[in-house]
Amino acid sequence: MAKDKNVEQITDMDQDFGQWYTDVVTKAGLIDYSGVKGFFIVRPYAYALWENIQHVLDGKFKDLGHENVSMPLLIPESLLQKEKDHVEGFAPEVAWVTHGGSEELSERLCIRPTSETLFCDHWSNVLKSWRDLPMLYNQWCSVLRWEKTTRPFLRHREFMWQEGHTLHETQEEAEQETQQMLEVYADLCENYLAMPVVKGRKTDKEKFAGAEATYTIECMMHDRKALQSGTSHYFGDGFAKAFEIQFSNRENTLSYPHQTSWGLSTRIIGGIIMTHGDNNGLNLPPKIAPIQVIVIPVAAHKEGVLEKAAELVTRLKAAGIRVKSDTSDQSPGWKFAEYEMKGIPLRIEIGPKDIEKDQCMAASRFSGEKSPIALTELEDKVQEMLENIQAGLYKRAKDNLTNNTRSAKTLEEVRAIITEHGGFVKTMWCGSLACEMQMKEIAGVTSRCIPFEQEQVGAVCPICQKPSDTMVTWGVAY
Amino acid sequence: MAKDKNVEQITDMDQDFGQWYTDVVTKAGLIDYSGVKGFFIVRPYAYALWENIQHVLDGKFKDLGHENVSMPLLIPESLLQKEKDHVEGFAPEVAWVTHGGSEELSERLCIRPTSETLFCDHWSNVLKSWRDLPMLYNQWCSVLRWEKTTRPFLRHREFMWQEGHTLHETQEEAEQETQQMLEVYADLCENYLAMPVVKGRKTDKEKFAGAEATYTIECMMHDRKALQSGTSHYFGDGFAKAFEIQFSNRENTLSYPHQTSWGLSTRIIGGIIMTHGDNNGLNLPPKIAPIQVIVIPVAAHKEGVLEKAAELVTRLKAAGIRVKSDTSDQSPGWKFAEYEMKGIPLRIEIGPKDIEKDQCMAASRFSGEKSPIALTELEDKVQEMLENIQAGLYKRAKDNLTNNTRSAKTLEEVRAIITEHGGFVKTMWCGSLACEMQMKEIAGVTSRCIPFEQEQVGAVCPICQKPSDTMVTWGVAY
Repeated sequence: MAKDKNVEQITDMDQDFGQWYTDVVTKAGLIDYSGVKGFFIVRPYAYALWENIQHVLDGKFKDLGHENVSMPLLIPESLLQKEKDHVEGFAPEVAWVTHGGSEELSERLCIRPTSETLFCDHWSNVLKSWRDLPMLYNQWCSVLRWEKTTRPFLRHREFMWQEGHTLHETQEEAEQETQQMLEVYADLCENYLAMPVVKGRKTDKEKFAGAEATYTIECMMHDRKALQSGTSHYFGDGFAKAFEIQFSNRENTLSYPHQTSWGLSTRIIGGIIMTHGDNNGLNLPPKIAPIQVIVIPVAAHKEGVLEKAAELVTRLKAAGIRVKSDTSDQSPGWKFAEYEMKGIPLRIEIGPKDIEKDQCMAASRFSGEKSPIALTELEDKVQEMLENIQAGLYKRAKDNLTNNTRSAKTLEEVRAIITEHGGFVKTMWCGSLACEMQMKEIAGVTSRCIPFEQEQVGAVCPICQKPSDTMVTWGVAY
Repeated sequence: MAKDKNVEQITDMDQDFGQWYTDVVTKAGLIDYSGVKGFFIVRPYAYALWENIQHVLDGKFKDLGHENVSMPLLIPESLLQKEKDHVEGFAPEVAWVTHGGSEELSERLCIRPTSETLFCDHWSNVLKSWRDLPMLYNQWCSVLRWEKTTRPFLRHREFMWQEGHTLHETQEEAEQETQQMLEVYADLCENYLAMPVVKGRKTDKEKFAGAEATYTIECMMHDRKALQSGTSHYFGDGFAKAFEIQFSNRENTLSYPHQTSWGLSTRIIGGIIMTHGDNNGLNLPPKIAPIQVIVIPVAAHKEGVLEKAAELVTRLKAAGIRVKSDTSDQSPGWKFAEYEMKGIPLRIEIGPKDIEKDQCMAASRFSGEKSPIALTELEDKVQEMLENIQAGLYKRAKDNLTNNTRSAKTLEEVRAIITEHGGFVKTMWCGSLACEMQMKEIAGVTSRCIPFEQEQVGAVCPICQKPSDTMVTWGVAY
């Protein structure tokens, strides 16, 4: 692999994963720090990545009948307080607006930490009849949570996300929606971001404030910690009752609708970095890489090189590939390191000798392998290599997940696995909060989820020894 | 035209244009009022319109080399104050965050009213060399201005927009960018929204806080008032100096870059409504209508009608037309009125008699005309009718602008024209603020712009009688 001072400056991921992460985020030009703690500038390269994720999700949402809307940024304090569990969960971490222009406000307004209360308020105005249902809404926006510890992408005080909010005639429909949207997230992660997921339900302790049930996809990072990557909530009719949302049903009497919400945020970008990155920097899955192929002319001053490079760009663009070339006066070595840092899946080099042989050289960011491509086969071969890179990234991440998920029968075993290997541990669980708390205290892990794919990894809860037929996956989470 | 109770409820636009506007905005399902004054809910139909506008603009921005980014929502008070004119313009109308979670902040943070200060702060971190220039950034977001009077789309306390911010090596490049982006806005308005524009420069009184020059496109609404529809600003190096943004130039010494910004907001949706709407409701230009064609089955219970309607939808969709059908149990009359209210350009009716004749009926929202289309020619005819509707809407708006733009030589004449006809008045102008203020006081108009297309409509300023060779367009503005 190419080496350059640019590359040397990043910390070795095996020595200090946290510092490696921060180095990549800044060196690859993803993030800049702003003047306010916890507020980050999402730079063009990271934003382009987010746009590609948005494009995939927005298409899926719309195919499933969802419509985008825009709700206000600010929530009156009295509105936030309407649903008891919800306000308890969010009130401690919101930012408050107290003055507008020169006037002091008669009621404080918080900047939305999430928008359930706003959607409910709107629905209480517009929902009339069963004919209006389902209401399938989504919003792309940023929200604020006044976190104490912050970190690029993983924990911002302001972060971008999408929040879906839906209302349904029946409980069954709402529950189906909750599961369906979790599947959409799982599909995004597995088939576009090359991130294998564990799907499951959150324990009561870990569920969303105000939800009856929260479903989650959990991913394992390179350092074997967990990242909660997308969640989907079923609310029952709790919010509907708190906000007096009713509709005239098919029998012409008043009913409360059943509600869901679901969200995925720019945190997933942190997940992509920590799943696929290495000591040369970012490593982007081709399906969502802003630039899939970088073309670099070698000995660019020689006759015909720049023209040939431009021709390759034109051909690849025409084949629907996201391609750029760098014809600047930087050295090829600098360019190799720069685009490895930026995680561009495929580098194509073209120089006088290649032109002579009617070929170019293609270097895979994933495998580090470099091989010639006959120019007659350019588009097909590049397409094939991109597909192989996508599959390779997924397989490597899947192996990491599989090899670092273990099962245990005792609390001591859990602690030993976590200390020695990290990763996920599967145990049975009695369902009590007390045992969940003790697992955290003794083994240092939280429940990631009750996986949909259950196994009988034991017969009793490893903490209280009560018979149990529920399996939980535990881990240390970001 | 179809009549229905839904339609009867909107106010006659010639009797009370303001009330007509409010009626359309709510009846067409564009807006709902939120619990906080000046904060509106942009409902799915309006949001889809905004998405179509975004799609057009975002494509043009990217074709011209711009990249999207995300800047923080909050600006520290000290940062807002760095550029003197800018803070004077915006400080009186911002919302202030004073508490985050349970802690009182050591410095107040305002919610961005616009993001020049944030971009400048970022650039002062990342700009190093002339090789980094130009920096061509854009942001899609919402901003807050604590306005006293608010109105759906036209004046929100929170509104969605895009704000472009660019840095350039030279004054010439920056000035060229400013003009180029104004042309992009003009192209959007004229060729997609069917809204003819007057392009020009703002007077010093009307320019953006902190700008050296502001360029604008001004549109004329149905009631002959002006709507400022998009602006583009040239900043010189004033902000760069205030924020200490410097780069190492080609001679290897430090230089200040030249800066621009430009914005267009959801206000333009108000413009579309007030340019094209009529007493039956909205009237959307086909190029940006979320639904271009609505297919309505007539006598839907008769054999084959629903199937034929579905077939038409499939065919039109395949031809790239945005089409929906309404197969609900509402009456055809209700549906006609509903989709006229929503301004869908073309309605297609299909019933047993049409099927017999292998035709459908097509009704233009613009002209009100209804005519048969042979099903063999469906796609071509629909495409042609949509193009005609687009052209018809533009011509009608252009006639309104042309017929209601007059020139005047005296202040009294201006006043008489405004009182009698409204619209735009062109006069010469000496360039002094005093005369501009007097025009407002006596004739009730503000300067809309100094049009790029200058004419010699007189020899002297109508107020002070000094010789003048600058023509200004005046009007009453939203």
